[in-house]
Amino acid sequence: MAETKELVLLNYWVSPYGMRCRIALAEKRVEYEHKEEDMMEKSPLLLQSNPVHKKIPVLVHGGKPVCESLVIVQYVDEAWPDRAPLLPVDAYGRAQARFWADFVDKKIFECGTKLWRLKKEAQGEAKKEFTEGLKLLEGELGEKKYFGGDAFGFVDIALVPLMAWFRTYESFGGFIAETEAPKLVAWGKRCMERESVAMSLPDPDKVYELACLIRKMFGLE
Amino acid sequence: MAETKELVLLNYWVSPYGMRCRIALAEKRVEYEHKEEDMMEKSPLLLQSNPVHKKIPVLVHGGKPVCESLVIVQYVDEAWPDRAPLLPVDAYGRAQARFWADFVDKKIFECGTKLWRLKKEAQGEAKKEFTEGLKLLEGELGEKKYFGGDAFGFVDIALVPLMAWFRTYESFGGFIAETEAPKLVAWGKRCMERESVAMSLPDPDKVYELACLIRKMFGLE
Repeated sequence: MAETKELVLLNYWVSPYGMRCRIALAEKRVEYEHKEEDMMEKSPLLLQSNPVHKKIPVLVHGGKPVCESLVIVQYVDEAWPDRAPLLPVDAYGRAQARFWADFVDKKIFECGTKLWRLKKEAQGEAKKEFTEGLKLLEGELGEKKYFGGDAFGFVDIALVPLMAWFRTYESFGGFIAETEAPKLVAWGKRCMERESVAMSLPDPDKVYELACLIRKMFGLE
Repeated sequence: MAETKELVLLNYWVSPYGMRCRIALAEKRVEYEHKEEDMMEKSPLLLQSNPVHKKIPVLVHGGKPVCESLVIVQYVDEAWPDRAPLLPVDAYGRAQARFWADFVDKKIFECGTKLWRLKKEAQGEAKKEFTEGLKLLEGELGEKKYFGGDAFGFVDIALVPLMAWFRTYESFGGFIAETEAPKLVAWGKRCMERESVAMSLPDPDKVYELACLIRKMFGLE
């Protein structure tokens, strides 16, 4: 049923949140139209579809919009339940997955943004929180292949866009991820071997170039 | 199965997040032990159960902790699926419920805290965001009985602890909720008629007294 409806992802290539949606849709092998938004002039469809936050990504399914990346990934899992489950089946496993995905939002991507959007002298606390966050995630990963165990899933999807951003975070934050959290970096490389991830993440050098450009625009050099 | 395991809620009476968990457990008619935490000296059980955030509420089920209130409410819904469903059945309805619950976290309770924890002169933006948030929620509610329609559910549970805090927010924020969002206040009163809500919310005057005390302690008068 679900697949017969028109499916459109409103996105912007550099967004880690958008990458999550692309990976989830690729894991489910669902076809969709990818609409790249102009962040300087948002489309009427975006403003109509997400009037509350006015942000990408938005997944529009049969004309009905779903907003916020973690909500979208859960929606994709529930709308196509017959293949590639993204969340565990048991209630406790699902709760753990939701807890860590929420942690990634609050402690990794929010702090990560501070690392390249703030002046160097204002980055201290964000850098500490970010590297502590990496270590906590590494502890949670332990010796497992993926966060949920042997199966690639929700927490992996939430976190792996990091791989497109590490170069930028390292460069402006002044740390080396492999020194701080070697097992997490190894996990990231393992995820990158999946087609769904590799095809959804942009070149880290292009992300870095854009970050440099934005910093110059805002006089942060 | 689920019910035979020991169930403990680590909580602090004034927390809107803890109130959500109490309401969800009451809706499911699940018995549990309520452990009131001392926020000045957190218990070893709390620190062990939530080593990442060290915050209440935590629901410990058969020795296994679940943290973060919206994660807990979804866990309760999934661990006792045979009664009083809290989230809608369909994928799109579930996505909408998760979106609005997330909105409540970001725009209502986070802003609400600023209203009583900041000095009067620093409250301007929080007050604007808070009252705008109320209006957006009122728009989403529309003419429905509850946020999900006729059935009390996830978004109602996420938002209704507001009823214990309105007096405090109004008093320090300098606005009257009934003027800003009369239908939302009517919805709140409707929710308060439910036993699960009435028994889980503290007296608004006691909440206000505590807020005054804390403001005095921090020299915010």
